[in-house]
Amino acid sequence: MFIIGERINGMFHDIARAIRRKDPGPVQEWARRQEAMGAAYLDLNVGPAVADRVPAMRWLVAVTQDASKLPLCLDSTDYDAIEAGLEICTKPAMINSVPVVQEKMDRIFAMAASYSAEIIGLTMNETGVPRDVESRIALAVELVMHCDAHAIPIDKLYIDPLVLPVNISQDQGPAVLETLRQIKLLSDPPPKTTLGLSNISQGTKSRELINRVFVVMAMACGLDAAIGDACDEELAKAVAPARILLNKDIYCDSYVKIFSNQGR
Amino acid sequence: MFIIGERINGMFHDIARAIRRKDPGPVQEWARRQEAMGAAYLDLNVGPAVADRVPAMRWLVAVTQDASKLPLCLDSTDYDAIEAGLEICTKPAMINSVPVVQEKMDRIFAMAASYSAEIIGLTMNETGVPRDVESRIALAVELVMHCDAHAIPIDKLYIDPLVLPVNISQDQGPAVLETLRQIKLLSDPPPKTTLGLSNISQGTKSRELINRVFVVMAMACGLDAAIGDACDEELAKAVAPARILLNKDIYCDSYVKIFSNQGR
Repeated sequence: MFIIGERINGMFHDIARAIRRKDPGPVQEWARRQEAMGAAYLDLNVGPAVADRVPAMRWLVAVTQDASKLPLCLDSTDYDAIEAGLEICTKPAMINSVPVVQEKMDRIFAMAASYSAEIIGLTMNETGVPRDVESRIALAVELVMHCDAHAIPIDKLYIDPLVLPVNISQDQGPAVLETLRQIKLLSDPPPKTTLGLSNISQGTKSRELINRVFVVMAMACGLDAAIGDACDEELAKAVAPARILLNKDIYCDSYVKIFSNQGR
Repeated sequence: MFIIGERINGMFHDIARAIRRKDPGPVQEWARRQEAMGAAYLDLNVGPAVADRVPAMRWLVAVTQDASKLPLCLDSTDYDAIEAGLEICTKPAMINSVPVVQEKMDRIFAMAASYSAEIIGLTMNETGVPRDVESRIALAVELVMHCDAHAIPIDKLYIDPLVLPVNISQDQGPAVLETLRQIKLLSDPPPKTTLGLSNISQGTKSRELINRVFVVMAMACGLDAAIGDACDEELAKAVAPARILLNKDIYCDSYVKIFSNQGR
């Protein structure tokens, strides 16, 4: 399980201001900091306040690539912005994200095939996020079928079963864990899985505690990636032994230190 | 998931000395402390150095019951000692433990039926602990069948798939997690599950970190109980949100505090 660093996002004031002023400083600082803390990808989102997302995403990709060797996860509902970013990515990127909506899947899967990109597919459609496991899996199957139809290797698809805040949708925790487990039964090799981790703790106290406990549970159910706070040391300290306990890394006494410094 | 407090054990010098001197002080102090920290049961083990375990176990049960209202988990390979303890338990106890060995099962299951006791059954037999999931499950099936043969309700059986230290048997972590999951498919209602938690971290650095990460993963796979350190605050702080995230407790902002004070 690896972390996609969430911090370069126009929802944060320093990033929004940096984009407005075309000041690469804060973006590159966060790129370097997340990479040093073990992020495996950097999520880039220009945020909601930007008038024209196409040049903003292109700028964000360019300045981030100047500061970090990590692959990028281009995060936007504006697919022109994602395509503009893909055009200048120097290594295969991840597209974040596509719901099970026909015209959106048509465009994103074609784009992913052209640019050898990975895709985060969401188990939601026009009517929203289903609350039960069976409906989420039915949507996951549609994502797998589209992947196949575009001849994209299935392990380039990361399915996100969409967690909801535990304090208002408590029954969704077990449903998401069970969905993660069942996604791994859909094909061989199976699709990969991801989560927008911080959603689980929205509006709760002890957000970091809830995030790290949930990610460890999700790892036991087959989670491959999570968009989250790569600079949360306690999160890294939970993920590192979980990887050891799942026999994904070889045990040595300094596994936490090694994990935190190598970027998975 | 609840914790069976492991601290009243003759392996610890203070408890060994207390048993030798018939000094109830340290035993009762640990009973109260573990109960206050949220233990649901108290494990009682007279330890390896005691010459006659029968009177020692009887004494340990008596003095512990004077200090705590918690049910007890009588932990010995000497079944006469366990029976001596069961005779004076004021509430139904747990028997820790029985392997899949015919004459041992015969005695323990009969004893459990007489005293309405719960049983920890181990997935091991005369030849030792199997390393693969299938063999562990085959032994679990034998435990379930014996439970049935003695007309003991299946949810009084706690199956322990036996974890091994992660630094020397790293492949056993995933095997134990998968065994926990499959035990829950054996019957309806399913057997319960338990682990000797501290075994996973034997000989490692950061033992508490490994223990709490593994228990959270095991909870995601259906773990019902663990014998462990009830006084490890970080363990309680991991178990409490895991229970919330599995929808076992109702969310409220102070769930950690509530969990730590109520003893499950």
